[in-house]
Amino acid sequence: FESKLPRIGTNIFTVMSQLSIEHKAINLGQGFPDFNPSAKLLEQVVKAMNDGHNQYPPMAGIPALRDEISAKMETLYGHFYEADTEVTITSGASEALMASILAFVQAGDEVVVIEPFYDLYVPAIELAGGRPVIVAMLPPTKTNPLYQIDWQKVRAAVTTKTRMLIINFPHNPTGINLEESDLDALERIVNDTGIIVLSDEVYEHIVFDQKRHQSLARREALAANSIVVSSFGKTYHTTGWKVGYCCAPKELSAEIRKVHQFMVFTVSSPMQVALAHYMKDPAPYMELSNFYQQKRDRLSLGLAKTRFKPMPSQGTFFLLADYSQISDLPEAEFARKLTTQHGVGVIPMAAFYGRPDAIESNHQLIRFCFAKQDKTLDDALEKLALV
Amino acid sequence: FESKLPRIGTNIFTVMSQLSIEHKAINLGQGFPDFNPSAKLLEQVVKAMNDGHNQYPPMAGIPALRDEISAKMETLYGHFYEADTEVTITSGASEALMASILAFVQAGDEVVVIEPFYDLYVPAIELAGGRPVIVAMLPPTKTNPLYQIDWQKVRAAVTTKTRMLIINFPHNPTGINLEESDLDALERIVNDTGIIVLSDEVYEHIVFDQKRHQSLARREALAANSIVVSSFGKTYHTTGWKVGYCCAPKELSAEIRKVHQFMVFTVSSPMQVALAHYMKDPAPYMELSNFYQQKRDRLSLGLAKTRFKPMPSQGTFFLLADYSQISDLPEAEFARKLTTQHGVGVIPMAAFYGRPDAIESNHQLIRFCFAKQDKTLDDALEKLALV
Ligand SMILES: CSCCC(=O)C(=O)O
Ligand SMILES: CSCCC(=O)C(=O)O
Repeated sequence: FESKLPRIGTNIFTVMSQLSIEHKAINLGQGFPDFNPSAKLLEQVVKAMNDGHNQYPPMAGIPALRDEISAKMETLYGHFYEADTEVTITSGASEALMASILAFVQAGDEVVVIEPFYDLYVPAIELAGGRPVIVAMLPPTKTNPLYQIDWQKVRAAVTTKTRMLIINFPHNPTGINLEESDLDALERIVNDTGIIVLSDEVYEHIVFDQKRHQSLARREALAANSIVVSSFGKTYHTTGWKVGYCCAPKELSAEIRKVHQFMVFTVSSPMQVALAHYMKDPAPYMELSNFYQQKRDRLSLGLAKTRFKPMPSQGTFFLLADYSQISDLPEAEFARKLTTQHGVGVIPMAAFYGRPDAIESNHQLIRFCFAKQDKTLDDALEKLALV
Repeated sequence: FESKLPRIGTNIFTVMSQLSIEHKAINLGQGFPDFNPSAKLLEQVVKAMNDGHNQYPPMAGIPALRDEISAKMETLYGHFYEADTEVTITSGASEALMASILAFVQAGDEVVVIEPFYDLYVPAIELAGGRPVIVAMLPPTKTNPLYQIDWQKVRAAVTTKTRMLIINFPHNPTGINLEESDLDALERIVNDTGIIVLSDEVYEHIVFDQKRHQSLARREALAANSIVVSSFGKTYHTTGWKVGYCCAPKELSAEIRKVHQFMVFTVSSPMQVALAHYMKDPAPYMELSNFYQQKRDRLSLGLAKTRFKPMPSQGTFFLLADYSQISDLPEAEFARKLTTQHGVGVIPMAAFYGRPDAIESNHQLIRFCFAKQDKTLDDALEKLALV
C-alpha cells in the first residue's frame, strides 16, 4: 500500500519525551505540567464515576458542560454560542482541529497556515486532500524582539481556492499574542470571502503582562465564520484527560459533529461531568495567567544568567531561547544533545516548520516548557548553566 | 460550503436515546449497560489520578496496557502482537475504525461492507474518498433462523480496486457469530490480494452457548493483513470512557498511528493506567459471556410471551425481534412509537442498512439491548406485553 502520510514519523513531542525518559533528563520539552490537577477536580471525577456516569454521554457532550462553556465564552468574549447547537465537546483540541479540517477541506482546497505552526495542521490538511499554503511569520528584529504575523503575506496567499485559514494564539511555540490590530487585519482579509477561520486558542487563559486574550469570539464579523478551539488540558493541568471543545456557528458545528460522531462518537463522561462542576468557579482559569507568569519569569531570568538567550513570551507555557553562543549545531541535533548529554529535554524550533531544512540556517532556537514545579525549573536551570 | 457528508444527520443511537429520555422510556436502544463498572476498576482510576497519571500518556498508549492486550491476544487467540509496535490504544473502537479507514482508503478505492452494518463504516469510507460496496447478508429462512454472510457474494464484490473489507462479529445488530468455515471462506477470498481486513470485534467477550469467538487473530494468514479492533467499553461496562484499541501488523499499525496521533494524539491516562491493572485478572472478561447469556435468555423468554417474536442471538448484547404480528408500520416509525407511546426505547433494524427505504418492506425488525439490570428488563417486558 501507499502511505497517505508518507513524510510523517512519530511526532517530535513523543520522540523527545521518550528520549528524556531514557536519559533521565528533566523534561522541558512536550507541553504538559509536572504537577497534578486540583484535588477538587479529581474529587468531582470520583463522584461522577460513583454516581454512575460511566456510559455514553450525548454525542456532542453533556449539556451541563456545554452550558458552562457557553456562559464562559459570553462572559469573557461577549459572544453567545448556543450550548445545544454551537458548542461541541471533543477528545482534546486535537480532535476538534482534525474534525474541523476533515469536515470542510475538500480535495484540492487550499488552507493557509502560519509558520511556525503546531505539527498537526499540515498532516490533517493533507489527509483531507487539501493543500497547505504556508505563510512565514516575520522574525524578530533588533527593534522588535517578537515574531509577528505578516498580514500582507497572508492576504497575498489567499486565492479563490482558499477554504480555510488556521491561526493559533497565544502562539505555540513563539509565545506571541495578537493585538486588536491583528484582528482588524484578519477581518479585512476574510470578510465576505466565505473562508473559515480555524482558531486554535488552547492557551487562551495563559496571557501575560495584563494583556487580554484576543479570542476570535470577540468579533462578531469573525465569529460568524470561525471555529474557536480550546482545551481543558492546558487550563486545568489535565493534558492526559483529552477533553477539549470547539465553538462555531450552528451550520459549521453541524458539519463538525458529523465527523466527530464517527471519529470518536463522544468524550469521557466522568471527566465531562467533573469539568462541568469545576467550571462553575471561574477562579482557576482567571488566576492561571498569574500562576504561569511567575514561572515564565523564573525560567526567563534564570536563562538570562546562562549562555542561552531567552526570548520574550507573551502567553502559552512556552518560551524560545537562542543557543547560538553555545553551539553551531542545527536545532534538532542540539535539542537531542541537550537532552541526552546535559539532562534537559527540549523541543527544536525546527519541529514547527514545514520545511525544516530550509530554515535550519536562519536561527538556532529551542523551545522550553515552563509548566513545571519551581523546583523542576530550578534543577533544569542548574544544568543549563553548565552548558 | 458543500457538506462532505450530506446524507448524515445525528446518528440513530443518539436520536433514540434522546427520545427515550424525553419520554421517560426504558432505554433498550443504544448499546450501553445501565449498571456501573466494577468498584475495583473505579478504585484503580482514583489511584491512578492520585498517583499523578493525569498528563499525556505516550501517543500509542501506555506500555503496561499494551502489554496486557498483547498477552490476552496471545493467550486467547494464539497470535503474538508486539506491544510496542502492533497494539495501539484508541479513543474507543470508533477511533480505531476511523483511523484505519482514513489511513488506508484512498480516493476511488472500494471497501466491501456487509449489510446490515454499524452506522460508522460507510460515512468513514466516504470521508476518506472511498466507495462502499455493500454486500447483503443472507436473511434467516424457515430452516435456518440465523443471518449468514454470503461469501459468494462477497467474493463477487471484490475487484482490483478493493482496498479493504470490513467485518464485524459477534455481529451488531443480528447477534450472529462466525464459524470456522466462515474464516476459511474469508481466507480464500483475501488470500494474496493485499486486501486489508478491518475486523470490528468489540463484542469478542460476549459469545453464547459455549461457542468461541472466531477472532481473525486466530488465523496467521488473516492476521497478517488484518486490523483487529476491540474496546473496553463493552467488556468492562465503561462505554462512556472511550478506551479501545487495535492490533495489526507493524506496517499497518505504523500508518494507523500516523492518523491517530493527529486525530486525538492519545487516550485518557488515568483510565489507561486503571485498565492495565484491572486487565491482569482475566476473570471479568472470561465470565462476561455467562453474565450476558442469562440476560439474553431473560429477555428472549420474556419476549416469547408477548406478540414480539425474538430472534436468536449468538453473541453481542443485542437481539432482534420481529413485530409483524403487531404493526405494519415501517421500522423507524414503529421504533419511535414504541419509545414514545409504549415506554420502551429500541433501535429500528433499518438503521443498519445503506438504503433504508429499499429494505423497509422486507422485514419488520427492531433491536433490543439487554445490557441492563434484570429489573430493567423485567419492567420493559411488562410494558412490551401490553403492546
Ligand atoms: C500533543 S503533544 C504536544 C503538546 C503540546 O501542545 C506541545 O508540546 O506543543
Ligand atoms: C456509539 S453509540 C452506539 C452504541 C452501539 O454500539 C450500538 O448501540 O450499536
